[in-house]
Amino acid sequence: MERSFVHVYTGNGKGKTTAALGLSVRAALSGKKVFFAQFIKGMEYSELKVSQYIKNIEIQQFGRECFIYKKPTEEDIEAANKGMDICEKILKGVEYDLVVLDELNIALYYKLIPLDRVVKAIRERTPSIEVVITGRYAPEEIIEIADLVTEMKEVKHYYNQGVQARKGIEF
Amino acid sequence: MERSFVHVYTGNGKGKTTAALGLSVRAALSGKKVFFAQFIKGMEYSELKVSQYIKNIEIQQFGRECFIYKKPTEEDIEAANKGMDICEKILKGVEYDLVVLDELNIALYYKLIPLDRVVKAIRERTPSIEVVITGRYAPEEIIEIADLVTEMKEVKHYYNQGVQARKGIEF
Repeated sequence: MERSFVHVYTGNGKGKTTAALGLSVRAALSGKKVFFAQFIKGMEYSELKVSQYIKNIEIQQFGRECFIYKKPTEEDIEAANKGMDICEKILKGVEYDLVVLDELNIALYYKLIPLDRVVKAIRERTPSIEVVITGRYAPEEIIEIADLVTEMKEVKHYYNQGVQARKGIEF
Repeated sequence: MERSFVHVYTGNGKGKTTAALGLSVRAALSGKKVFFAQFIKGMEYSELKVSQYIKNIEIQQFGRECFIYKKPTEEDIEAANKGMDICEKILKGVEYDLVVLDELNIALYYKLIPLDRVVKAIRERTPSIEVVITGRYAPEEIIEIADLVTEMKEVKHYYNQGVQARKGIEF
């Protein structure tokens, strides 16, 4: 069995989820099966349609229709843990080759899911499953178990010019 | 006509081309037409198949079968300039909504294409075309004309453990 790795895409710059999506597409096009879990997010993202075109990618959302701005609610905690239940099973299974845990770092930052639960699920996964974790504020323990960490650093952003998120570019 | 922006994904970390690919997929799934030009690269990448699944993405390579290690050859220069000829026309046209110039920064770093030619083509493009430029070593002039710049910073990489590039993950 081929060795697999844990990737982390973190930092405050644009490109984290997009890189995970690009990696998923590349993997799927090479014949791998991909499970793409979106924590926190429950909004209508364009990428949700990807499975209609590329059958090897399954995408599921475990968040609400809005981002968490201040204090997370019971609903946020429930949605994230329901997602983690599903991801835990998938990480123990043999159906998928690549599992993306999009915005998991944010779910950890807000303490929606216990960190040790996540670390355990990743450490004890089926050894052939490649894992990708995205989101700002990656905790030290996640950096530690990762084999590859890229920090996406914002150098310039058009949001600072007052530009709003646009369909097909940001979502 | 909606305003458009220039994105730059640079730095030494993994995720630049992958982010451009992810952005292309998101854009295409929202109905936009995408032209994805790969400079430098001429190898068999898994992403080349993307157009078979998502019709709105066209991908073309303007490089040779190997990376440039030391001095670029006449062939490298010719391939890059042929690519730039095509991209210039596309940037002046109305067929595409998003144009990716993958590894263009590397082509500029090796002086395969004159920098002022590239800056001119981007500045004088059809105003509605969103542009994405990737590659390490983004020159100052490219950073300047960009509206969004993310530096992908390598924090950890499994290449440093002696791992080779893998199909479906790196290519």
